[in-house]
Amino acid sequence: MKNPVNILQKFSLFTDQWSPKIIGELNGQYVKLARLKDEFVWHSHKHEDELFMIMKGTLIMEFRDRTERIEEGEMIIVPRGVEHFPRTENGEEVWVLLFEPKDTKHTGEVDHQKTVRDQSWI
Amino acid sequence: MKNPVNILQKFSLFTDQWSPKIIGELNGQYVKLARLKDEFVWHSHKHEDELFMIMKGTLIMEFRDRTERIEEGEMIIVPRGVEHFPRTENGEEVWVLLFEPKDTKHTGEVDHQKTVRDQSWI
Repeated sequence: MKNPVNILQKFSLFTDQWSPKIIGELNGQYVKLARLKDEFVWHSHKHEDELFMIMKGTLIMEFRDRTERIEEGEMIIVPRGVEHFPRTENGEEVWVLLFEPKDTKHTGEVDHQKTVRDQSWI
Repeated sequence: MKNPVNILQKFSLFTDQWSPKIIGELNGQYVKLARLKDEFVWHSHKHEDELFMIMKGTLIMEFRDRTERIEEGEMIIVPRGVEHFPRTENGEEVWVLLFEPKDTKHTGEVDHQKTVRDQSWI
């Protein structure tokens, strides 16, 4: 069993954006951290619900029918099948914690230049 | 789909201790909040790994072979089958976020007067 993990400290171990790092595993799910800045890509996950918990900054989540602002200390769950487009405003880098099944690709059904194939532990 | 959830705000909606409240559901797992104070009970979960993320205070987690202090901003994953005994020090109330399968009983295999049978959403 691993020792306690300091979440904010883990963010200091990487700088690349839109490239989730794994910090925990339980019940077939991963806990991941990601630094987000500017725009990602419209996508959905066919079989996976995805939780975003905001550790720093404000995440803008575009849906096809609305826009949500998710502030530091808030979380949102995007159900499977729902198209979403995460982005940030004004060049802000936003830090998020993700919970999702181990086999989730971060760009979902979309194959994009931003798709990271090998997610690694930090 | 639910709107963003402010985690600390949700804590203001209940006061009972050792009685987890559900704030989210994804992939057969629940996200829960709990207020912990003083001692719980030795227990393990046969089939479920359990994540504790500390939102306020310091959680002491006793294992049969060691003691871990989990501070605010830290998380620990207790694997299935591992006996643990959560407690707090000096009368401090500690706020935790839990992530675990929907059918997890918080006292695990142990039936105790502290076992809460009906966990509810807030």
